[in-house]
Amino acid sequence: MKKYTTIILAGLVIVLAAALVGVLTYVRSQPVEVRAVEPLVEIAPMEPDSSIWGVNFPSQYDTFIKTKTNNIDTTYAGSSQFSWLERDPRQVILFAGYPFSKEYNDDRGHANALEDVRATKRLNLNDEDPKHTPATCYSCKSSANPGLWDRLGMQAYDAMSFNEMTPNIDTTIGCSNCHEAETMRLIVTNPALEEALERQGKDWATFTRQEMRTVVCANCHVEYYFTGEGKYLTFPWDNGTKVEEIISYYEEAGFKDWAYPKTDTPMLKAQHPEYEFFTAGSTHYNAGVSCADCHMPYVRDGASKYSSHDVHSPLLNPEQACGQCHTDTEYVIRRVNLIQQQVAETKIDTEDAIIDAINAIKAAVTAGNADSALLDEARKLHREAQFMWDFISAENSTGFHNPEYALEVLAKSANLARQAQMLAAQSAGDTSLLATGTYYPAEVNTP
Amino acid sequence: MKKYTTIILAGLVIVLAAALVGVLTYVRSQPVEVRAVEPLVEIAPMEPDSSIWGVNFPSQYDTFIKTKTNNIDTTYAGSSQFSWLERDPRQVILFAGYPFSKEYNDDRGHANALEDVRATKRLNLNDEDPKHTPATCYSCKSSANPGLWDRLGMQAYDAMSFNEMTPNIDTTIGCSNCHEAETMRLIVTNPALEEALERQGKDWATFTRQEMRTVVCANCHVEYYFTGEGKYLTFPWDNGTKVEEIISYYEEAGFKDWAYPKTDTPMLKAQHPEYEFFTAGSTHYNAGVSCADCHMPYVRDGASKYSSHDVHSPLLNPEQACGQCHTDTEYVIRRVNLIQQQVAETKIDTEDAIIDAINAIKAAVTAGNADSALLDEARKLHREAQFMWDFISAENSTGFHNPEYALEVLAKSANLARQAQMLAAQSAGDTSLLATGTYYPAEVNTP
Repeated sequence: MKKYTTIILAGLVIVLAAALVGVLTYVRSQPVEVRAVEPLVEIAPMEPDSSIWGVNFPSQYDTFIKTKTNNIDTTYAGSSQFSWLERDPRQVILFAGYPFSKEYNDDRGHANALEDVRATKRLNLNDEDPKHTPATCYSCKSSANPGLWDRLGMQAYDAMSFNEMTPNIDTTIGCSNCHEAETMRLIVTNPALEEALERQGKDWATFTRQEMRTVVCANCHVEYYFTGEGKYLTFPWDNGTKVEEIISYYEEAGFKDWAYPKTDTPMLKAQHPEYEFFTAGSTHYNAGVSCADCHMPYVRDGASKYSSHDVHSPLLNPEQACGQCHTDTEYVIRRVNLIQQQVAETKIDTEDAIIDAINAIKAAVTAGNADSALLDEARKLHREAQFMWDFISAENSTGFHNPEYALEVLAKSANLARQAQMLAAQSAGDTSLLATGTYYPAEVNTP
Repeated sequence: MKKYTTIILAGLVIVLAAALVGVLTYVRSQPVEVRAVEPLVEIAPMEPDSSIWGVNFPSQYDTFIKTKTNNIDTTYAGSSQFSWLERDPRQVILFAGYPFSKEYNDDRGHANALEDVRATKRLNLNDEDPKHTPATCYSCKSSANPGLWDRLGMQAYDAMSFNEMTPNIDTTIGCSNCHEAETMRLIVTNPALEEALERQGKDWATFTRQEMRTVVCANCHVEYYFTGEGKYLTFPWDNGTKVEEIISYYEEAGFKDWAYPKTDTPMLKAQHPEYEFFTAGSTHYNAGVSCADCHMPYVRDGASKYSSHDVHSPLLNPEQACGQCHTDTEYVIRRVNLIQQQVAETKIDTEDAIIDAINAIKAAVTAGNADSALLDEARKLHREAQFMWDFISAENSTGFHNPEYALEVLAKSANLARQAQMLAAQSAGDTSLLATGTYYPAEVNTP
């Protein structure tokens, strides 16, 4: 009897030990994020300090922090602060009379946004008095904005200068610009975006999560302008978000960013219309791909999976970014390179056409006896051509976000620029204004 | 004992019956084509009669025969014989002085090629004497060609007129144009293609089967011209197959198709450069897709699988054509529609620019006192602009075979056309030559 007891007990021991090992192995194999954990800290609504959010979401925060130092360039752009004016000196001419002709550096990562906006020479170039730069220029540069908009209203930005607002702001772009602290869901925080969508009859609260993974980028990556005396931040989308629709909006609003020197063209500067450009029927957008799918791909850290917040060009991590959908990354890279080369070359041809138009209009104005109706028509086409070119040029993908649209718009732009030049020559009745390649005076330098 | 014997025998019967049913079911489930069969008839080398090939390959032949009646249109083209001159009357102006301005109908399917080439008014429009249309015009229209080239040499076509060659030819495009009878492998049959590849240092015999599924289409779907007195069929690829490289080839050859009336521009007519256009870095070509993958998709007939020879636009059978790779056909169709719309609209803008240039050059010539060097420069740009436009326009996909390249080339074309117009105005010192929209005289009709 004692012998049986021993055998039964030994058997039980073995069974229990095996069961324990099994359970432990199972538990270890479960993704960490799947465990329901209490948040470590409570995050206040619209908390501007991203490091507090980072306590609860260390992977997301750790990758966000990398945007401080991810200053790597791609073939055509990237995340360093190279000077567009040095890389493409035509832009010095194209933006003459406007601060962008004095300094136009490429953007660095999100974590540098506040430092970089405060350092830009453009802030004080408009005027000797820095008070005249409106506080609205902080709108896309800080995680303090959602709280300030909530507390003070967006009108407060209109009433204050950039320098007056400075003490209220000490955090760069961060978590609160796209997330609701209580739920972590993606939200529209910029009142200008909410209002622009409302005027289009759209309510972002009804959007799907996948839609929000694009729309939150439109908190900043859009075309915008400052309306009225108060410099109220406004998206010019009432007629639609295609480039002609934006031009017609500005036309109706009688808006100009600056007057081109010696031609007196009422110019428009495009900001960074990534959202409008990408959503204008691009292949990726139509396939349901969001901005975050490529720029914030899902990555693994041990057993946990999260969306990388180290936002930059997918050309720097194609295996992760493009590899979410595409199996042959080498093929994808070759495609991107070819498309960007086609757009970059067509862009330069277009710039040459616009510069020829500028020089012709200048000459017609200088002549003094030009037909003013024809000259105005030339200015109108110069304005449209340059905004179309800038819509593609300022957009941060060298056309890749929507290749066919980029080339379609550039084709229109160059055609309009040539017509502007012809109108200038007609206005002065002078065919010597039809010189082409005027960016390259023969005796100085040729391409 | 007898009882056991009965049971054993009955068991054996059941087992054998089951085995037989199994074997029969297995045999029935095998694809028909997998069985090694003796060919039903022997096909002579370069046999022109496709119906004889059809005895051995009924599925391929049955689908080929459908190209006789598949006259269905897509949004922008298709397989009916609609008139381009009626659909887009700008082309009457663009091809003025050349037979294409008198008749320019869209192509029907392969099985109609012989009937249609004999019926075209273009044949006799060049000259009152039809003998002057060279036999070379048969080169892409008949399955008799491989045998005739082999027997008589391509030079025979140079020596004979179209009408003199007629008795030798009574079969439309067919099997022998792409297949070797003995092996059924895909082969280059057009000597002009073989020679053009050779001059590029390429030997088609070393190409893979997948490469040949594109290269055999280049037996005909290419840009070509007739050289010298003998009208020898030649592909202008010695500098490369991109549009600028073809222009530079024609420039070096001092070749023109016709002189534009009243401008005396040495013009070039593009034929149907599908091969050059598709292989110029298109996304499908770079992904290893061949012409046959989309235009001759694999289809099933019962248990047999074969490549459809009912060649036409994939827009007419997207589930089969695009569905070989793409799961979401609805998405693909939307993409194609948008791309073709973008290209079609940019094409019209480009045509308007070229017509403005033509009218300006005409006016400068008529004025009589124009600077001849500037006028020649205007003609050169008109020639280049129109060939670039035609390269995209004559190519049968409204840009879809290579969307970015289509838009890049059209952008260049319109820019050059505007410069041609400006040079014409400069040559005459007359700014009234800078009128735009001259296709639409204000008092007649506006777009």
